[in-house]
Order: sequence, then C-alpha cells, then structure tokens
Amino acid sequence: MRAEIISVGTELLLGQIVDTNAAYLAKALSTAGISVYRRATVGDNMERLVAALTVAVAENDIVITIGGLGPTMDDITRDGVAVAMGDRLVPNDEIAENLSKFFADRGIPMTESNLRQALVPVHGRAIDNPNGTAPGLLFEKDDKIAICLPGPPNEFIPMVDSFVTPFLLARTDNKGTIRSRILRVIGMGESSVEQIVKDLMQDDNPTVAPYAKIGEVHLRITARHDTAELAEELVEERAALVRARLGRLIYGEDNQTLEQAVVSLLMDNGSTVAVAESCTGGLLAKRITDIPGSSRVFPAGLVCYSNSAKEDLAGVNSSTIEKHGAVSHEVATELALGVRKRFTTTYGIGITGIAGPDGGTEVKPVGLVFVALADNNGCKVERAHLLGSRSIVRTRAVQTALNMLRLSLLTQRH
Amino acid sequence: MRAEIISVGTELLLGQIVDTNAAYLAKALSTAGISVYRRATVGDNMERLVAALTVAVAENDIVITIGGLGPTMDDITRDGVAVAMGDRLVPNDEIAENLSKFFADRGIPMTESNLRQALVPVHGRAIDNPNGTAPGLLFEKDDKIAICLPGPPNEFIPMVDSFVTPFLLARTDNKGTIRSRILRVIGMGESSVEQIVKDLMQDDNPTVAPYAKIGEVHLRITARHDTAELAEELVEERAALVRARLGRLIYGEDNQTLEQAVVSLLMDNGSTVAVAESCTGGLLAKRITDIPGSSRVFPAGLVCYSNSAKEDLAGVNSSTIEKHGAVSHEVATELALGVRKRFTTTYGIGITGIAGPDGGTEVKPVGLVFVALADNNGCKVERAHLLGSRSIVRTRAVQTALNMLRLSLLTQRH
Repeated sequence: MRAEIISVGTELLLGQIVDTNAAYLAKALSTAGISVYRRATVGDNMERLVAALTVAVAENDIVITIGGLGPTMDDITRDGVAVAMGDRLVPNDEIAENLSKFFADRGIPMTESNLRQALVPVHGRAIDNPNGTAPGLLFEKDDKIAICLPGPPNEFIPMVDSFVTPFLLARTDNKGTIRSRILRVIGMGESSVEQIVKDLMQDDNPTVAPYAKIGEVHLRITARHDTAELAEELVEERAALVRARLGRLIYGEDNQTLEQAVVSLLMDNGSTVAVAESCTGGLLAKRITDIPGSSRVFPAGLVCYSNSAKEDLAGVNSSTIEKHGAVSHEVATELALGVRKRFTTTYGIGITGIAGPDGGTEVKPVGLVFVALADNNGCKVERAHLLGSRSIVRTRAVQTALNMLRLSLLTQRH
Repeated sequence: MRAEIISVGTELLLGQIVDTNAAYLAKALSTAGISVYRRATVGDNMERLVAALTVAVAENDIVITIGGLGPTMDDITRDGVAVAMGDRLVPNDEIAENLSKFFADRGIPMTESNLRQALVPVHGRAIDNPNGTAPGLLFEKDDKIAICLPGPPNEFIPMVDSFVTPFLLARTDNKGTIRSRILRVIGMGESSVEQIVKDLMQDDNPTVAPYAKIGEVHLRITARHDTAELAEELVEERAALVRARLGRLIYGEDNQTLEQAVVSLLMDNGSTVAVAESCTGGLLAKRITDIPGSSRVFPAGLVCYSNSAKEDLAGVNSSTIEKHGAVSHEVATELALGVRKRFTTTYGIGITGIAGPDGGTEVKPVGLVFVALADNNGCKVERAHLLGSRSIVRTRAVQTALNMLRLSLLTQRH
C-alpha cells in the first residue's frame, strides 16, 4: 500500500504555520506499514489542488488530505477530492441535523455555508470528528481510497488515532510493516561514524542512515517486513551489529536524551552531581532538571557568571583568575572541585568558555570552552574549540560535560 | 517569480522530524514577494527525487531544495539537482582546501566522502555556509534557478537570511509584496486578546491573526501591496491600532524574545538581577544568559534544588521550610530577598513550585508555583497554578518571572 499526504492551505505556503500534522500522519502511516513516497502542500486554489490530487490518486492507493474542510468559501478540499476521485457530494440529513443542534445548543446562528459540512461522497461516508463541526470524509472508488481530515491539530490527531490507523491496519493485514530505531551517538562526528558503519549502509532493508544533530549523531535503522514482529527482529539484528561496533559511543536509543541517560546512570550508581557554570549560564542545570526525579541526584547548581560569583560561590581563587583568565583550564578545575566540595557530591562539573558572539581574542577565540569533571580521583579537563552560534556553542559545551560524566559513570559501574 | 520548495529526507516522510525549515523558507519567500505554489517532500531515493525536481524545474522559475547535502552516501540532493537542471558537478579546489584545513585544525581525519562537499555546478557556484562543512549550491541555467541548502536548521536559517532573501530580492522588482509583523503579548490569554482586537480581525488586508504560544500570545499582522514600502505602511497603521489597545501587554515585536526585552530594559535602566531557582532548575538563568552581553546585568544564578541548597546558597531559614514547606509564598520570598542581598543586585527573583509529573498533593498540586520579585521596595509574590507538562510548567513559571521583572522595570523607568 502506497500513500501520498497532501496538506491544503495558503497559510502553509506562506510559512505562517509549521505543518506538524503532516509529520504526525506520516509517522502513523509508516508505523502501520504504509509507504509514504511523497508529501505535497498546496494553497487554497481549486485548479492547483485538483492537479495535485489527480496525480496523487493516479500514483497511489491512498491519498490523505489535511485541512480545508471548514465552512468558509476558501475551504475547497471536499470539492477538490470529489473531482479527483470522480465522485459527487450529496447532503446527509443526519449530519445536517447534528450541525443544527450544535449551533442551537450554543445559541449561535447557523449560516447556509455551515451546511457544506453535511456533504458526503456518494461512494464513501463521513468520518466522526468528536472535537469539531467538520466531519472527515472517506472516499472509496475504483480501488482507490481518499481520506479528508480537518486541519486543527486537536481535531486532526484524535481522528488519525481513532480512525485512520485502525482503518488502514484492517486493510493492509499488517503486510509490509515498517519499524525503525534510532541509536544516539556522542563523541564522534557524522562522517567518522559513517566510516565505521559504511558497509551496513549499503543494504535496502534494513537501511542505516546517519543524521547530524548538535553535538551528537543519530543513526536511524529502518526495516520492513510482513509483520511488526519480523520487522522489529530485522531492526534489532542490525542494531546489535551497530552497537557492537560503536560501543560506548552510543548513549541511548529512540527518544532517550543524553540527560535522561546521565540521570539514570547517576541513580543506578547512587551517585550525585553539582555543577558550576559560567558560559553555559544554567543550561547544564536546566538539562539535568528537565528529568523528573533529578532532585535525587542533583542538589544544586551555580551560575557563576561574574568573576566575583566564581570566587564567592565556587571558591575559585582570585589569583587563579588573574593569572590564567576566567576562561582557562585552571578556573574550570577550581569550579568543578569547588562545587563538588561545597555540596559533597560524587561529581562536580565546572564549565567556563567564550560563547560569543563577542569577547573572543586571537588566543582565546569565541567557542573556546573548558569543561572540568571532578570526582574522588581528582579532576579531568577537556578543552574544546566549538563551532557555531552562541546558542550552539552553549549546547555543545553542555553535551561535552554530560558525556564526560556519562563515560565516568560507565567506568565506575564496572 | 514562482517557486517550489522541495524537502529531501526519508526522516521527513517517516514523520520522525517536523519540517520547520520549509515553513521558514516559505515565509522568507513570501516576504520577498515570491509566490510558492507548491511544496513537496521526497525521501532519499534518487529516482523519485529526480522525478519531483524535473517537474518542479519545468513549472517554476526557482526551485529550492532543503537537506541531503551531507557527506554521506544517502545525501543525494546535489546529484539529483544536477540531473534535473541538465548540469554537471565539478570539484572546486578552494572548497576542498578549506575542508582539509577545517579537519586538520580540529585534528579530525577527513574521509574521501567529505570531498563530495567540494563539488560545484558548471553553471553555478557554491553558497557560503558559515556554520557547517556543506556549502549550499546555486545552479543558474536556461533562465531557471535552483538553490540547494543544507538541512540542519542552524546552518539552513542563516543561509536563507544571508543569501536566499537578498539574492531573490535582487532578482524581483518587489511587485505584490507581502509584509508582516508579530506583536508579542504576555499576561493575557488568547481569547481575551482576541476580544480586544476582534473588529480588527475582520479585514482581508491587512489581516490580524492571534497564535497561542506557551505563556504568551502572538498577534500576526500581514499586509499585501504593490511595493514593500506600501505594504509596510499598511502593517504599521494596523500595528499602531493594536498597540494603542494592548499597551504594556505587548512586550516585543517580530523575533524579539521576552528575555531580550528584559535584558535591554535592565541595560537601559542600569539595573541588575540575580536569581534563585528551585523548580525551574536553571531555566531562568539560561534564558537570561541566552542574550549576548547579559553578563553586564546578571552576575549570578543559584539553582537551589535541595532544601539545604536553599538554606546554604540563598539564606532561606530552615524554620521557614519546616513551617510552610519548600513550595510556599514564604520560601519564594526568602529566595528572592536572599539572592538579591547576596549579589547586591537591583532585583532578586525567587522561584519555587511543583513542576511534576510527580510530587503534587491535594493542597499543593502539580503546577503550583510561587514567583517572587524583590527590589528596594520589598518583595512581591505571584502564586500561579500552571497547566501542562513538566516542561510547560517550567516555561510558564519563567515567563511569569520575566514578565514581573519587565513590568517593574517599565514602571521604574518613568
């Protein structure tokens, strides 16, 4: 089964809203084993909508439209799909009555145009929309299926879950189901990761594809098979090969974030961490406390933005700052040691650097960051020259800090 | 001038990521007066990519692709566009040298595949990418233009701003230009804002439309006219009417964030602020220090996650915590007063609350947050019951804190 998604709305072509619906539907379809070969977005223009729909109907088994089912004149989807499917729309008395009742109950006058929402295809039917006045539409004609869904996400998403997915699963017998997994890699760039798994990227099924993220790389493994279980097995086999090669470079899978991985390692080890941040300004503490339950492993963080705060809060020596500058190996070390001592935690982290866009010099350019990790064996410092905007430098610095902590926790564990 | 946007990436068809880039580009094009009639999304499959590109090149003056320019084998865009444009790719020595230097500087081995990023069209050139190794590509042949941009948003967005928009503005005569502005509102919900500007929302040109964001509302004003200047005038007229009605509820315009507004008010007033955060765990400090130059107004932040950190760092009395609980009006007050005193700042902010998903009780439910603002007149506390996930509660709490500070700064100024 092959499908195309068509989003309808001039506001999408003008970029006034981001099409989160299409991504949601695409995910639901791929999970149901339906291949989406193409997505298209067209404006509220009948000629161009019908052109896109006609091609889509010809080339696919299923076409699903998003939006354009409202009561107003620029809501043209139902008419456009009827033309492309060679079908006609007729009024449905039951829907018309429900609409009248809806408006009467709320004391709102119903206009003539509202009754357009009571039109249904001759070869098809309405799809229940519990959260709005516009029902969806199902067209079934000449072995082709078209489904029209309304655009507001609070109406659209429940209809995907309650109608589209079960309806299509019943039609596909689960044949050709797709499963995928993401292995999340940190500490190595995209092209080096690719070198390691290059031979595994040659196959069509399962596929292995790398995606560069800020401060990490995601490897997506996707497999297709007759059933979900078989597809899952294929994914798992391939994931096992990748895991064997990348080892500790992989910190997590699917939606697991680096901070989740770190907080669960801290909990497993019964360890705690406190942080003293300069250039990251609270981002490291924020990432750690994003995780529910992090209070068990994280008592406190210090945002030592000024030099005197570094001295006052983390006990950095003023002579160290004078001699080496606030952005230095030595200050990072004293921040980490100081915050660890102050909160008697297993680990202390210190970060100092130049996030930019200003404040760089030839010797200490924008993006220069020192990250220190202190534990009962002493203190380890990484010096990095990070590339990108202020926000990216800060994110990469935090990635570095969390990964240093993760690797130490993994070593401690054994 | 007519354009099509083609997003390339199997991850988009699988719904694994939301295509925010396409919306950003669509907005930039419409602002430049270029009509986008269609957007399409295809996977990492050469045959289908070339098919989509060939139609797009035939039907439009400009085709812009997003993604698929990385160094790996599944990055097929540059080859696909060359085929569709009837052009060839040749290695560019300067880019190859820069790439080698990039890797050498960082002590990372360069792989053969990285050199694919040094290929440029015979009829065209590379487009500078300051934030990544993949340059963009410009093809110009037979009155058709194709532009290829990399997919990572941190590379893509600056290239749209610095290259695509100026390049295309130079090619068009700015006929039928659209201009829009966003007025950013805080401290009132979407439907109440709508009530105030409802009559202004009736017109077709300019349009006024509200968008609910987390902890704020954006009002978008869009106007279309023959020239950019005339469109801008229409927007400005309407914006003046809205401003007159909403007054201080508007904190900023367009891309100005709440933290930017607050940091510039602090700078203008010669004021400073220090913060003591419990449930927001560093998010407030992070938001303030997102702004370049914030070190002039923000010496330090305390993330007092544990009770003892509240006592040790911000001088909260243990008896206050015992008597009223850590989430209380009284503890928020002592946090704000304590941090202000400790860093001798103009303002001190204290936040304590229950971010969830666990830890709520009947009396103190998840979402209960106290935000305190201390200044030389004493301390003001807001109690809020915030709705949403952990992350949304934290964001709304920070919005509340920043807005309290903003309103106080506005009052001080006069």
